Amino acid sequence: MIERIAILGTGLLGTSVGLALRAAGYRGAITGWNRSAKGVQEALDLGAIDSIANDALQAARESQVAVLAVPIYTTLDFMEKLSGVLGPEHLVTDVGSTKAQISAAAARLFNTPERAAFLPGHPMAGKERGGAALGDAALFRGTVWLFTDDPNAQRSPHSAALVKGWREWVMAMGAKTIDLDPARHDELVAWVSHLPQFVATALSALLQEEVGDAPELKDVGGRALREMTRLGASPYSMWRDIALTNTEAIQAALLALEQRLAHLRENLRTPELRDEFEKANRFRRE
Amino acid sequence: MIERIAILGTGLLGTSVGLALRAAGYRGAITGWNRSAKGVQEALDLGAIDSIANDALQAARESQVAVLAVPIYTTLDFMEKLSGVLGPEHLVTDVGSTKAQISAAAARLFNTPERAAFLPGHPMAGKERGGAALGDAALFRGTVWLFTDDPNAQRSPHSAALVKGWREWVMAMGAKTIDLDPARHDELVAWVSHLPQFVATALSALLQEEVGDAPELKDVGGRALREMTRLGASPYSMWRDIALTNTEAIQAALLALEQRLAHLRENLRTPELRDEFEKANRFRRE
Repeated sequence: MIERIAILGTGLLGTSVGLALRAAGYRGAITGWNRSAKGVQEALDLGAIDSIANDALQAARESQVAVLAVPIYTTLDFMEKLSGVLGPEHLVTDVGSTKAQISAAAARLFNTPERAAFLPGHPMAGKERGGAALGDAALFRGTVWLFTDDPNAQRSPHSAALVKGWREWVMAMGAKTIDLDPARHDELVAWVSHLPQFVATALSALLQEEVGDAPELKDVGGRALREMTRLGASPYSMWRDIALTNTEAIQAALLALEQRLAHLRENLRTPELRDEFEKANRFRRE
Repeated sequence: MIERIAILGTGLLGTSVGLALRAAGYRGAITGWNRSAKGVQEALDLGAIDSIANDALQAARESQVAVLAVPIYTTLDFMEKLSGVLGPEHLVTDVGSTKAQISAAAARLFNTPERAAFLPGHPMAGKERGGAALGDAALFRGTVWLFTDDPNAQRSPHSAALVKGWREWVMAMGAKTIDLDPARHDELVAWVSHLPQFVATALSALLQEEVGDAPELKDVGGRALREMTRLGASPYSMWRDIALTNTEAIQAALLALEQRLAHLRENLRTPELRDEFEKANRFRRE
């Protein structure tokens, strides 16, 4: 039923969505728009999109489903603009990493019988570096794709069918879907996604100061060090918007970890250390 | 020249040393001793050792090289006992993760012309779980094996030749050797090895409390979460001795990370966040 998709933003995620749709058997049109011409040309060369759109709003208007795969504040800007030009025959969805602000904007701007539908989404997949060139048809396979849809959305039958159709394509891309309340989503990802990222950033930045002038010493750390700092390569441009739209939950998680590290530091020579290791062992076992 | 090796402790590292020696072409005898009968039988079954020793001291006496692959305090106990029963025709070496106390014991108990040689070693290799069954002939390939030898050691020509011979076997196992001062070693590994471990332990223990009751939510974190908590499975029994023998350096590293996390927490909404991401990016690029 979905035959015309516009991907707005052909970075790593947008390009991977196009490739994964093709791998899952989608045969309709996919047009792509990107802020930089290079990224959209790469997506075209890879086969993630089959045409380049010069005007994002027009591309969305001519499609049934518009996928916003841009940073969060850019997503919010697009939502404002798209709500004015799309109608009940359209679905807009996104891949942003925080959902409270996006879900609030969706309730304000979409999801009435006269307006387009908006389905807030968040695939838990990515790489520590971005860009169309790293696009991967298998990126979503075996991962979780979260949705924070509004149970009170009042959609036209047409756009409601598009929502159902898009959920089916997400599953066809190999992802397991989970539905969450937007506030619960943001709190949960603060623990299991944002906290690990900010820890890796802090650890990498600290080690850059401590041992960065002796690159051969990085070899000493081996696989453990490489894993614990891999996310240190993540781009500020993406994480800035996450930090700005989920500040309180991230602050709470960081503070809790600071306290945990202090507790461990004060108990390196006491039996408390055993309890911490046993609790950590349990997290990995279960 | 080395034809008789005793491996005292056939856990993951001891068993891997035996397997790696065989893979590198070592054709001499390898006898193995272990505190538990199960571990030594597994090492024998895997071909890491060719005989089981019931008495560790006797096994060392009948060998040219004794490899201590046991926790640090057990290594220190063995050093006391072996120094009384071995002579200048012997070499003792170890694989312990901290080196200041072991190197001090080596200077006190070994390395005179009348006594056995002791070469303090530390392969930067391991897995988050231990045991002979995980022994791996390729464990040291492409890794770094640190030595903290005493430049003032006064060795018999015989034991000096054994030291040279063991260093050659370590390289034959695929490791790159680096020589460090013991105090510098312990400070360095506090940053690049011990800090990542204790961070993973604290993060895993914290997440066990926060999301441990909803195991399906761990899926949400994906690869990033799995990597950042993999070391959470590491055993207390090994890390207790590391915490006890490198307390101050680990405390300093933990405190520095706590301060770094607090700085990040306080700057989630300021341009300072960009500086931290850029510094972290640099650590991964160089």
